[in-house]
Amino acid sequence: MTHLIHDVARLTPRIRRLKGQVAALEKALAGQPECIAVLTQIAAIRGAAQGLLLEVLEGHMQAHVAGEKNPARRSAEVAAIHKVLRSYLK
Amino acid sequence: MTHLIHDVARLTPRIRRLKGQVAALEKALAGQPECIAVLTQIAAIRGAAQGLLLEVLEGHMQAHVAGEKNPARRSAEVAAIHKVLRSYLK
Amino acid sequence: MTHLIHDVARLTPRIRRLKGQVAALEKALAGQPECIAVLTQIAAIRGAAQGLLLEVLEGHMQAHVAGEKNPARRSAEVAAIHKVLRSYLK
Amino acid sequence: MTHLIHDVARLTPRIRRLKGQVAALEKALAGQPECIAVLTQIAAIRGAAQGLLLEVLEGHMQAHVAGEKNPARRSAEVAAIHKVLRSYLK
Repeated sequence: MTHLIHDVARLTPRIRRLKGQVAALEKALAGQPECIAVLTQIAAIRGAAQGLLLEVLEGHMQAHVAGEKNPARRSAEVAAIHKVLRSYLK
Repeated sequence: MTHLIHDVARLTPRIRRLKGQVAALEKALAGQPECIAVLTQIAAIRGAAQGLLLEVLEGHMQAHVAGEKNPARRSAEVAAIHKVLRSYLK
Repeated sequence: MTHLIHDVARLTPRIRRLKGQVAALEKALAGQPECIAVLTQIAAIRGAAQGLLLEVLEGHMQAHVAGEKNPARRSAEVAAIHKVLRSYLK
Repeated sequence: MTHLIHDVARLTPRIRRLKGQVAALEKALAGQPECIAVLTQIAAIRGAAQGLLLEVLEGHMQAHVAGEKNPARRSAEVAAIHKVLRSYLK
């Protein structure tokens, strides 16, 4: 059930963009930003992280659940995915 | 209604931690990480961004709604905050 | 800090609609529904509940934070609201 | 790709509970409830709907992705699930 991630090329630019958003926020904070602007930046970062989560989830399910030949491994993978989702989403 | 952010000292370490989480994910991707590990890292980043959003929201409401003397400005500020929330949360 | 809710007339139709969505889902379940249809109905219910939460939050903040004359009560109200948000959102 | 839902017996009590929560909220609204109490009830309903979404998602993925023999159908099912998630989660 150890699956190496396969879509590095697709994820890397999105993660760099997220990194850029966080760095921009850190920089903005140093310059006494306006409150609503900070709230908007953080809401956008949260949205980007949520979008990334859905994308990784779909890529993972396509590669390692839909693409897995062994039914017991598919079932264990679905259980592992949902253990993560239940821990982090409320 | 232009309020400068006031709790930079409290937010900065949290934003640095978030930046560190995103940098760690970017680094992990370069080394063929295991899929569930990546999913867990991204779920944690999303959770950190969500927690930060709630914290900034509370700080902002305390400083610029509860702490604002002019009732019309308080009302306009609440409307501005919710415009952001409605745009980003679904 | 005990505030009676003031926008009953505005909330009631939304809550009835939500109730209708849940009743429709319960009824659908009795008739062997298609899986994706059930997933869609539940996702819509979750979205309706999230939208209702934002609306009640804004109404409450307008009425009992922006509209409250006593600054200490405004501050206590913001703290009470965020205690609820932190308990339920992750 | 048309899958009938299989875990009606497990879902029905949860949906009834959710229905009860919405009915209790509707009833409370008729009696001039306290604002924070309403906010708490709605946050709990949103949490129940989110939890139900994760449960239906896992049940569906176990039954119709992990349990599906045809790889093309598994892949189409994952795509259909994510279309719903992308529409409703932000």
